[in-house]
Amino acid sequence: MSVETEKARAADWFAALRDRLIAALEAIEEEFAAAQKNQVPSARFDRRPWAREGGGGGVMAMLRGPVFEKAGVNVSTVHGEFTPEFRTQIPGAVDDPRFWASGISVVVHPRSPHIPAAHMNTRHIRTAKAWFGGGADLTPVFPVDADTRDFHAALKAACDAHDPDYYPRFKEWCDRYFYLPHRDEPRGVGGIFFDDHDSGDFERGFAFTRAVGEAFLAIYPTLARRHLHQRWTEAERQAQKIKRGRYVEFNLLYDRGTLFGLKTGGNVEAILMSLPPDVAWP
Amino acid sequence: MSVETEKARAADWFAALRDRLIAALEAIEEEFAAAQKNQVPSARFDRRPWAREGGGGGVMAMLRGPVFEKAGVNVSTVHGEFTPEFRTQIPGAVDDPRFWASGISVVVHPRSPHIPAAHMNTRHIRTAKAWFGGGADLTPVFPVDADTRDFHAALKAACDAHDPDYYPRFKEWCDRYFYLPHRDEPRGVGGIFFDDHDSGDFERGFAFTRAVGEAFLAIYPTLARRHLHQRWTEAERQAQKIKRGRYVEFNLLYDRGTLFGLKTGGNVEAILMSLPPDVAWP
Repeated sequence: MSVETEKARAADWFAALRDRLIAALEAIEEEFAAAQKNQVPSARFDRRPWAREGGGGGVMAMLRGPVFEKAGVNVSTVHGEFTPEFRTQIPGAVDDPRFWASGISVVVHPRSPHIPAAHMNTRHIRTAKAWFGGGADLTPVFPVDADTRDFHAALKAACDAHDPDYYPRFKEWCDRYFYLPHRDEPRGVGGIFFDDHDSGDFERGFAFTRAVGEAFLAIYPTLARRHLHQRWTEAERQAQKIKRGRYVEFNLLYDRGTLFGLKTGGNVEAILMSLPPDVAWP
Repeated sequence: MSVETEKARAADWFAALRDRLIAALEAIEEEFAAAQKNQVPSARFDRRPWAREGGGGGVMAMLRGPVFEKAGVNVSTVHGEFTPEFRTQIPGAVDDPRFWASGISVVVHPRSPHIPAAHMNTRHIRTAKAWFGGGADLTPVFPVDADTRDFHAALKAACDAHDPDYYPRFKEWCDRYFYLPHRDEPRGVGGIFFDDHDSGDFERGFAFTRAVGEAFLAIYPTLARRHLHQRWTEAERQAQKIKRGRYVEFNLLYDRGTLFGLKTGGNVEAILMSLPPDVAWP
């Protein structure tokens, strides 16, 4: 199959997954609004296309609703050339600085401190090499064992169907990555993280990447529904704002994607859409 | 004069300035409480001593009041040895990694969007060399020309009394330093910034450092009082929370002191006391 066809298949998948994720989150907003006898609006995602200087662009979809205080789903397909300082850091970019990248990035910050925040991101990158990367992880304010267990089980099933080594490796990678050394604490309860994956075997990498997206799409709405009608106190809301502060600290101090994007002149709004809406460092 | 006497004089000055700053801010809280017929508490700073693993420590003083939503004044005097990775980055530390440092750091986040946030920090550092550093800058949500002008004038007067070259150099340094490249915007309306200052001339450097502290102590309470009874709207408060988000972005992405402190195992609470209490990325 031609390179162009592979690129188109990956980009199409990310866009299709975006549409399904958006539908899944909007359905929860609708259910909630209906349960509230429509005293609250049934919020919808708002889509805003953006173009990248240098090649390509994306669509940033944002929802600000009664259930999902701030949810962002960004799909982008970009191309260009890495600047000399980044060439040595990117597989296959030393001799030929051209790249093409397509991906989906999802960050959900629910209003309720009982619904866990979540992040999922998968991407396909092509330089002289070609690979997949991404992951999914959960950041509850008050971890609930059953939620943590079911989230990990969904990702484990997706991994195990492809390779029994994936889950332990990618779970450990996630724990190592989403960690705040200055606080000596993890960002959340983990998930999986993978990168430079299946270089050279498009079908294998693509199938696994799709499985990660499917697993997230299946499990996250389930977890959100579990806590949809649970009430919270002001103290719980404040604990959520403080926990979100840790999220901000991680993303601005350590997250490679955030720092890379900001330093390479990426779309600031799309990169920082991951930051939570209401945050406290009391 | 002996090195030990110089160190003691610097450390004593920072502690004395802290006491006067605390008194000045508490006086404003008292005035405000009295004007509100004591319907609000007249808030006080709370002082918490902390010890540094490796040598020395400090006192973190925090005020959470009706006027100053979060104000922190941290004084620390620490000593130890730089790790190998930092020795080349610090003047005089290549051959002898031992250091001694004393300083004051002040960050004020007022509740009112009309009272500007402010930062002042001065320090004396000794390795094989000895120097002063610091600065003061203002971060209003809605810049008011008269405030900006008076703040700069106070710092200019402090600078000009020592050297006519200081103000233009240190103002430009401040503008360059407190800048968010990813947003292409300054953090606030500036002030002054200086470092590696008057290496080798303790009296000269110390006198200028005291002048910067005096200037801040004189002008900031004046600016805060100007807007003490000015009302604000919800929209103005929201604009303040968003502006505070930029402050967080700067401190976690670019501030050398913050990043250096977090990477060298500094006191996390003291370092991150600079982060604003209530922040929004809507």
